[in-house]
Amino acid sequence: MPRFFIAGTNLLGGTAIIRGRDAEHVRVLRLRPGEDVVLCDGQGTDYRCRLVYADQEQAEAEIIEVVPCPAEPGIKVSVLCALPKGSDRTDYIIQKCVEAGAFEIAFFSSSRCVARPSEPEKKLERWQRIAEEAAKQSGRGIIPQVSWLGDFTAALDFAVKKELGLFMYETGEREPLNAVLEANAKAGNAAIITGPEGGFAQFEADLAKVCGLHVCSMGERILRCETAPVVALTATMYATGNLS
Amino acid sequence: MPRFFIAGTNLLGGTAIIRGRDAEHVRVLRLRPGEDVVLCDGQGTDYRCRLVYADQEQAEAEIIEVVPCPAEPGIKVSVLCALPKGSDRTDYIIQKCVEAGAFEIAFFSSSRCVARPSEPEKKLERWQRIAEEAAKQSGRGIIPQVSWLGDFTAALDFAVKKELGLFMYETGEREPLNAVLEANAKAGNAAIITGPEGGFAQFEADLAKVCGLHVCSMGERILRCETAPVVALTATMYATGNLS
Repeated sequence: MPRFFIAGTNLLGGTAIIRGRDAEHVRVLRLRPGEDVVLCDGQGTDYRCRLVYADQEQAEAEIIEVVPCPAEPGIKVSVLCALPKGSDRTDYIIQKCVEAGAFEIAFFSSSRCVARPSEPEKKLERWQRIAEEAAKQSGRGIIPQVSWLGDFTAALDFAVKKELGLFMYETGEREPLNAVLEANAKAGNAAIITGPEGGFAQFEADLAKVCGLHVCSMGERILRCETAPVVALTATMYATGNLS
Repeated sequence: MPRFFIAGTNLLGGTAIIRGRDAEHVRVLRLRPGEDVVLCDGQGTDYRCRLVYADQEQAEAEIIEVVPCPAEPGIKVSVLCALPKGSDRTDYIIQKCVEAGAFEIAFFSSSRCVARPSEPEKKLERWQRIAEEAAKQSGRGIIPQVSWLGDFTAALDFAVKKELGLFMYETGEREPLNAVLEANAKAGNAAIITGPEGGFAQFEADLAKVCGLHVCSMGERILRCETAPVVALTATMYATGNLS
């Protein structure tokens, strides 16, 4: 069934008014009165609708059923990644984490980051477009926000405010990821922090632990910096019953 | 610690003889007698060695300890993917599945495959190189083999011979992946089958079920054809205790 994200204000009473780019999309798909579509408010709610009218400018649809978007996981996971070197890796992280169910994605700078963007804010528009595209393609009920946090301490500060804070680290004393996830399977929100190409420095892992984050191991295989967030997020989705 | 894959025959008695490209690698890394290296036989066994001698042609190392490679998972998972359209997607599947712990990766042709290579065998060398590179980078104890299976029935035939056969499908009646994995957490080997860009046809899913494979759901999010194998493999690794 065709799916659109539309602005919440266009859903009033029992009728949805589709305008602008979305109305154009209705035209492109040659949808006709009587056909069903799903309009998503981008806040996790799906409006199952039947088209009653469509012209060049706008379309109108009768709202048949209002349901929580079934693709949205029960846990809101924020994925915080040290900025990788290449923009293809950044793009990849955004696309795959949106598919895998991230609530939001943010980048930050850590001590071993090779990439030190002077104006990362300028990339936000592009990053957000990738998230929107992936959200549409994968049938998400929200468009995960992509943001720039600044430095490492900002990422820690962000993560400690979540019910569950996971800091993925590849050496030294760590908790097994499965033990931590099983003990926190009912968490409503979580943050996952992953490192840059060269990994985190020991002092960064120490600091994360002092702040109360779980410094976690994902086994002895070394994951690339663009693979680790997707694997950690998938494990979290699996452990919390959001992958079946 | 530096890690090399070397041919098993060079490991005899208490001494390892390093020749050719590997000896060159020792030179490039400027390793000197007294330094420790790990030599992996590519069959899952690590030989922890100390260099005793190195010249232009070869190096010799004393074997200190022989241990199973800690990066190798306890379950051998074969990932079987319908051939995607673009070679970048194929490359991506190989690289990420090797990192995530696949035992081997194979491609096949299904009814909705857009890509129908006339001579897929010609790509094998390139695919194997990607697997080797990823195996080295991620510290694997084997170099997972990449192969071409032929048509869909060959993939089914391959999968039914495994202790656990998972067929990932996005619609209709399916078993939840977590229930299937939890009931089979002790399996020694498994196959995961994933579809092409347009998904599998219903008759293909029906056939898989008739053959005794578990037709599984990974939730309501639609995963791209290059994302699904990595997510399914990660879930399998997590559920079998191989991701911590």
